[in-house]
Amino acid sequence: MTLSATGLSKGRIEALSDGVFAIAMTLMIFNIKVPEIPNELVHSQIAHEVFLLGPKLLVYFISFVMLGVYWIGHHNQYHYILSTDRPFLWINIFFLFCVSLLPFSAGLLGQYPRERTAQAIYGLNLILIGGLLYEHWHYATLGRRLVVRDLHPDVVRMAKSRVLIAPVAAFVAICMATVSTRLSLALFVTIPFLYIIPGRIDRHWLRPPASDSTEESM
Amino acid sequence: MTLSATGLSKGRIEALSDGVFAIAMTLMIFNIKVPEIPNELVHSQIAHEVFLLGPKLLVYFISFVMLGVYWIGHHNQYHYILSTDRPFLWINIFFLFCVSLLPFSAGLLGQYPRERTAQAIYGLNLILIGGLLYEHWHYATLGRRLVVRDLHPDVVRMAKSRVLIAPVAAFVAICMATVSTRLSLALFVTIPFLYIIPGRIDRHWLRPPASDSTEESM
Amino acid sequence: MTLSATGLSKGRIEALSDGVFAIAMTLMIFNIKVPEIPNELVHSQIAHEVFLLGPKLLVYFISFVMLGVYWIGHHNQYHYILSTDRPFLWINIFFLFCVSLLPFSAGLLGQYPRERTAQAIYGLNLILIGGLLYEHWHYATLGRRLVVRDLHPDVVRMAKSRVLIAPVAAFVAICMATVSTRLSLALFVTIPFLYIIPGRIDRHWLRPPASDSTEESM
Amino acid sequence: MTLSATGLSKGRIEALSDGVFAIAMTLMIFNIKVPEIPNELVHSQIAHEVFLLGPKLLVYFISFVMLGVYWIGHHNQYHYILSTDRPFLWINIFFLFCVSLLPFSAGLLGQYPRERTAQAIYGLNLILIGGLLYEHWHYATLGRRLVVRDLHPDVVRMAKSRVLIAPVAAFVAICMATVSTRLSLALFVTIPFLYIIPGRIDRHWLRPPASDSTEESM
Repeated sequence: MTLSATGLSKGRIEALSDGVFAIAMTLMIFNIKVPEIPNELVHSQIAHEVFLLGPKLLVYFISFVMLGVYWIGHHNQYHYILSTDRPFLWINIFFLFCVSLLPFSAGLLGQYPRERTAQAIYGLNLILIGGLLYEHWHYATLGRRLVVRDLHPDVVRMAKSRVLIAPVAAFVAICMATVSTRLSLALFVTIPFLYIIPGRIDRHWLRPPASDSTEESM
Repeated sequence: MTLSATGLSKGRIEALSDGVFAIAMTLMIFNIKVPEIPNELVHSQIAHEVFLLGPKLLVYFISFVMLGVYWIGHHNQYHYILSTDRPFLWINIFFLFCVSLLPFSAGLLGQYPRERTAQAIYGLNLILIGGLLYEHWHYATLGRRLVVRDLHPDVVRMAKSRVLIAPVAAFVAICMATVSTRLSLALFVTIPFLYIIPGRIDRHWLRPPASDSTEESM
Repeated sequence: MTLSATGLSKGRIEALSDGVFAIAMTLMIFNIKVPEIPNELVHSQIAHEVFLLGPKLLVYFISFVMLGVYWIGHHNQYHYILSTDRPFLWINIFFLFCVSLLPFSAGLLGQYPRERTAQAIYGLNLILIGGLLYEHWHYATLGRRLVVRDLHPDVVRMAKSRVLIAPVAAFVAICMATVSTRLSLALFVTIPFLYIIPGRIDRHWLRPPASDSTEESM
Repeated sequence: MTLSATGLSKGRIEALSDGVFAIAMTLMIFNIKVPEIPNELVHSQIAHEVFLLGPKLLVYFISFVMLGVYWIGHHNQYHYILSTDRPFLWINIFFLFCVSLLPFSAGLLGQYPRERTAQAIYGLNLILIGGLLYEHWHYATLGRRLVVRDLHPDVVRMAKSRVLIAPVAAFVAICMATVSTRLSLALFVTIPFLYIIPGRIDRHWLRPPASDSTEESM
């Protein structure tokens, strides 16, 4: 009896992850409610009311992009991962749990963008997601436990550095909030863009550069 | 070590896209709330209350179909796309972000169908989705960057023309709203039907016509 | 250049359909709100308040099962379908649109289970879904347009009969509502169970009976 | 005409299941609303208001993990399942229905964590999901109906024992609620952790232990 179950189980974690990410990303928009305006005021106030949704929309945007970044990072790790085991599976489930919390944290920050508590919770959520993604990679690569044997140490190390950008920046933002919540908010808005710039890891990519510099965009 | 990662990464973008589209399409219905009617008035008012949901339902319908059209267009492009790179991935994420905004814009238009602001935001959203889909194709095909080498220039050009139908029509509708919001609304309702009629691109389709005229329905 | 695009496109319609069905089925539960009870009354009233959710839960249950039935029916058709074309794609999109409406219709019926208007809308929704699924099969099999050439006429005919059970029963229920909304509601509750009983089509199933009588459970 | 439909149908049930699980898991967070605080009180009250969400968050966490556990259990069974039939399909649909109810039960328990009624409904929901998963496995393995012929009786028996842990614990918790709702709540919180500890079934796993002790983590 042969069951190619190892690959299957990997594929299933990815399927559940894709679902959780797609839902969390798409559903955050439901934090932005269509404003209810009394009939006689609609025409004069609608533009203003929509304008007031600006901060929520901005927070939604950076949260969507951050989840996109983490989603790419999660998938990139699976290029090298060959098998899974029980602790690894649980790291995944805790990781997905933290992902599913972001719509709440983003809703809180969108509602109260200048409140330190809201910023701290949002930042903590980003740190938890990033930290678990780091642990996910650390666990899998320690002694080449679940990855290809000949994986270059530089790939392991650089993937770790990239994963840590967001948690570190979020930590700095939380600290900065004690000085200025405006500055802290500006840093949160900047985080996703730190990942858009191609990083050093590109050079260590294992496949021909022409077709897949994508693979490492986190 | 061989990883067929290029194809994989393409498949993953498609999986996330399918998820975001399916969720955005299905969830818009939650903008249409079951009317709350006091007990003693239910019997006499329910038909009228449901009737009042008409405009919302219409906006939901055209938005659902528009997302269907864009979804088909997105997938058709992937028939020719062989690989991905970092900027392409980010175009995708911004595209999906705009897709995920449509439930909000549709909710706004459904609530205030005759307001110029609501029409402008809805139209702008359609323009952004269509524009990013255009850029998606333009980036991939420029110098045959990410597509099959022998892709016929006519296929590239005609796919571009088709993608632009909705953004151009939405732009016209926004302008028309300054004259008549009724006319503008009528144009928004018409847009999806512009895609139902088979287009000239069919002739340039690369596979036997019997089985797949579908592939290009956007 | 060879693209196995026909199969792909079929697979993609199925992926979008799976998404829309899974979301519509799972999200209906959000029509059932946790009752808000003032603190001092919670202990004495919570059981009663939950009990009052009974009709909503029942409507949710039959709607979930009906969507399950239609989902199975949709997938069974794809066993025989080899390719797609533009009109077929649009039948699919209208079909999925009607599927996505059921959470609203079910919410309305759950809120006002004894109202004729609510019953009529719910019934009409079931008729539309079933009718489009019928048309889906009719269009694909007419002249063996999109299906395997040697498909037995009995399979075509019997699949049609089965698909029509729900729309016909829903039509009868709508008519019955003019006499008794209680009777009509009872019929709506019965519909899904009409599909649980194995049907005559089993005998015409093309594969060894031991392993897959499933395939035709609608 | 050959259709590899048996595997297909299995794959489709899994696709729908993945969708329902991902949605139910991710959407529960929407039971946790961002608190609405009057402008002048935001700064002084936001931390306290978020703190009050603690019990809801805890219930969300254990429900997310429980669904993760049941999802893994469901998938593990499919490693051995080769085909499906009509009753099996219906067990699956009832199973998914109960899964989709958990966001409601979790919302109720999160709102009223110390109420016996809420605990009973939440516990009953866990029992129903677990019971149907047991029946799912029992039906498939009875006389090796739908599974590989040479499946070892110990694998069948031990998988059953593991599945029953949660329903039995939930039953005990419901009973304990008559004595102390605090104790009962503590037991509910404990249940998911019963599955994190690797079980005896590991030894009977059919594939090389290095790569996939995962497969049986429920």
